[in-house]
Amino acid sequence: MLQFFDFMDEDRVLSTPEELLSYSSDASRHRSLPNLVLMPYSKEEVSRIVKIANRERIPLVPRGAGTSLSGGSVPVDGGIVLDLTLMDSIIKVDLENQLVTLEPGVVYGRLNRELEKYGVFFPPDPGSGSVCTIGGMVATNSSGLRAVKYGTTRDYVKKLEVVLADGEIIRCGTKAVKSSSGYDLPGIFVGSEGTLGIFTEITLRVIKKPTNYATSMVGFSDGFKAGKAVREIMYSGLQPAVLEIMDKNTLQAVEKYTGLNFPDVEVLLIVELDGFDEKVTLYLREAIEICQKYNANIVEEAISNADRESIWKARKSALPALARYKPTLILEDVTVPISFLPSLFKELEVLGKKHGVEIATFGHAGDGNLHPTFLVDRNKREEVERAEKAIGELFHKVIKMGGTLSGEHGIGLEKKRYISIEHNSISLMKQIKKSLDPNGILNPGKIF
Amino acid sequence: MLQFFDFMDEDRVLSTPEELLSYSSDASRHRSLPNLVLMPYSKEEVSRIVKIANRERIPLVPRGAGTSLSGGSVPVDGGIVLDLTLMDSIIKVDLENQLVTLEPGVVYGRLNRELEKYGVFFPPDPGSGSVCTIGGMVATNSSGLRAVKYGTTRDYVKKLEVVLADGEIIRCGTKAVKSSSGYDLPGIFVGSEGTLGIFTEITLRVIKKPTNYATSMVGFSDGFKAGKAVREIMYSGLQPAVLEIMDKNTLQAVEKYTGLNFPDVEVLLIVELDGFDEKVTLYLREAIEICQKYNANIVEEAISNADRESIWKARKSALPALARYKPTLILEDVTVPISFLPSLFKELEVLGKKHGVEIATFGHAGDGNLHPTFLVDRNKREEVERAEKAIGELFHKVIKMGGTLSGEHGIGLEKKRYISIEHNSISLMKQIKKSLDPNGILNPGKIF
Repeated sequence: MLQFFDFMDEDRVLSTPEELLSYSSDASRHRSLPNLVLMPYSKEEVSRIVKIANRERIPLVPRGAGTSLSGGSVPVDGGIVLDLTLMDSIIKVDLENQLVTLEPGVVYGRLNRELEKYGVFFPPDPGSGSVCTIGGMVATNSSGLRAVKYGTTRDYVKKLEVVLADGEIIRCGTKAVKSSSGYDLPGIFVGSEGTLGIFTEITLRVIKKPTNYATSMVGFSDGFKAGKAVREIMYSGLQPAVLEIMDKNTLQAVEKYTGLNFPDVEVLLIVELDGFDEKVTLYLREAIEICQKYNANIVEEAISNADRESIWKARKSALPALARYKPTLILEDVTVPISFLPSLFKELEVLGKKHGVEIATFGHAGDGNLHPTFLVDRNKREEVERAEKAIGELFHKVIKMGGTLSGEHGIGLEKKRYISIEHNSISLMKQIKKSLDPNGILNPGKIF
Repeated sequence: MLQFFDFMDEDRVLSTPEELLSYSSDASRHRSLPNLVLMPYSKEEVSRIVKIANRERIPLVPRGAGTSLSGGSVPVDGGIVLDLTLMDSIIKVDLENQLVTLEPGVVYGRLNRELEKYGVFFPPDPGSGSVCTIGGMVATNSSGLRAVKYGTTRDYVKKLEVVLADGEIIRCGTKAVKSSSGYDLPGIFVGSEGTLGIFTEITLRVIKKPTNYATSMVGFSDGFKAGKAVREIMYSGLQPAVLEIMDKNTLQAVEKYTGLNFPDVEVLLIVELDGFDEKVTLYLREAIEICQKYNANIVEEAISNADRESIWKARKSALPALARYKPTLILEDVTVPISFLPSLFKELEVLGKKHGVEIATFGHAGDGNLHPTFLVDRNKREEVERAEKAIGELFHKVIKMGGTLSGEHGIGLEKKRYISIEHNSISLMKQIKKSLDPNGILNPGKIF
């Protein structure tokens, strides 16, 4: 298929086995080779590529930094990987309207460093933030620790320029704060995982960056009570900026990895309040008082930025610590309505015992998004199978609780066989897909 | 077509000329008779009706309280008006997860009275709130004074049960706080003005109702400076709950109507802060200080609930006061990015003079959503034509500023001939419409 793309500079067309190999995977366990990698640098080029792919029925897999945890950027059946990282201009910071317009390949970390100069920020904060691209974040509606207060990527996407499956370039959305004019097209593109169009320009809302933070680590000897404290904090109107949770198994790994110590702690919460003056410390006190009603002990309280760093060290080391603990991690991403948080913890305990599999759980307690991490060795087939059985049962339980299969990672390849247990509207999704991409060239085989 | 619906109780089938007449209009100037009005009381009945309408190719116009300002609930070519007001159960208040599930015919005012018992509320607050239905609010993504802090209906719709054009009943969305699982179907239904499906059950997020309010009226002798003050307040991080504006023409009408007095005031702002303790009065002070930098005078400051009522009297009398002033009001709903607010005021002055038409402007300054109101007499054809010319020019200017044709009222019939100046993605919207409603039975002739 190389011959179709002779209008591209040679160094932006990759086709050697070595080159293709590095585009055969993302941060998930899925692996599959593309036939070709193209690195466009303009919307016109993207449009031209898409037109050809559509005419020739070649699968097109859009890709940012390849940090997807669900296989979203892995080809299923060959075709072209469209690497969008060369389209990485920050086109305009419109401070008066608190908007930034950029190309999809801009790296999240770079964007927020740039925005910091203006005193604003783009709040969603994925774990892969130092490398992941904004295009990828929009495609998966990703979020992170701060979603509990600030919401997800969806809440910040104001406008999109999209190359549709036939190569047409459309713009949708508005710079106005609100609109009731026509269908909300950005809404359908956000979270569509590359299956409905290729983003070539993105306008995000940004907001004023807080100047004050107050952070505390609080330990509970009873996980169920920790769940209750989370519920009460969320209902108090305090609006924590971060409300993270780590269970005993995670803490043990963190202790080994970092030398930190959490004696008598079954479950650890990290609470952070942010704002524009010192009142944040008062609000943190109120949050801590709620925890103390449930017999919590203060493990550490940050009054300086240095203290705050040390608290975050504990949370941020969770995943690398677990990775040392066992050769393979299966990181899940379920989300339940807050009231089911204590039940979800109970359920994970039951499933771990029933299937003889170690599960370490951490995540964003404040919005009900947990990352139960199944610790296995991928070379032990039987162990992996037991974990997968447990995960399947977990999904059914989560859906029964009114939850969702993915809080922030997307469905991709990883969970597509489960999606119909969550949605009875898959045929409608497929109808929309069929209507926008009749030849099925855009990231085929993903979501459903 | 009466014979198809003999399964409905007689008193829920309206077909006399008198009955049909009362369904021939809404709060817009559009008028057209349906052939039949059906008042279903269950989703199964809605589904059955839709199946028949689809088979027989009968247009179906869903309707709540008929408060649409854009003709959204007026039939275009006869057919059936589906009056959903009998489906008015509040099914479940889930306080722990801050959710309420209800049928589409529930009246907004009733919902918030019910929610108040639990200390929570559904923030969007349309002017027609005492009579309009939640189904209609979801269909038009309506909002109101509080959108500046709390957003629009879209931001609160968590789940929808929808009867599709073929009669299938689907559910979409999730009770979880966030999700990256499949396409965001609620997003495409919210604001679709009845053209993609009939809502039969709606789950909304609700939030804790503030306990403290601080409100002030501030007068400016220079409209341009008022616009600058609005921009600075919005950028300060203060998050006003309400930031309303009224121009000289509106104030004059209000003075005559209410006996209130606004000497030397060209433009009036109403600022309200809300929260959960007395700090709101401190924040109000900060907002007032910003206004004073732009030479504002405090007209009134509310320290009691009674004072607050008197301030709101001024704002809420704007529309009835204008209605006394001139026989016909053409109420517009444009929204611009905040930075263009001063230019928009200038533009309205220019257009008024150019076309010799009186324009009184009030609205939600904080989110850039103004309601320029064209004061005419509908019996004077030439006067109406001048106003319409001015409105057409206004729309073009607003779009040039990066704004939108409608901030909260919807497109309906009123603005469909202008929609392509805002969007270059109409063909995509039509494609989605075609895919979901191939026979075009759902509220035909609306939006585009």
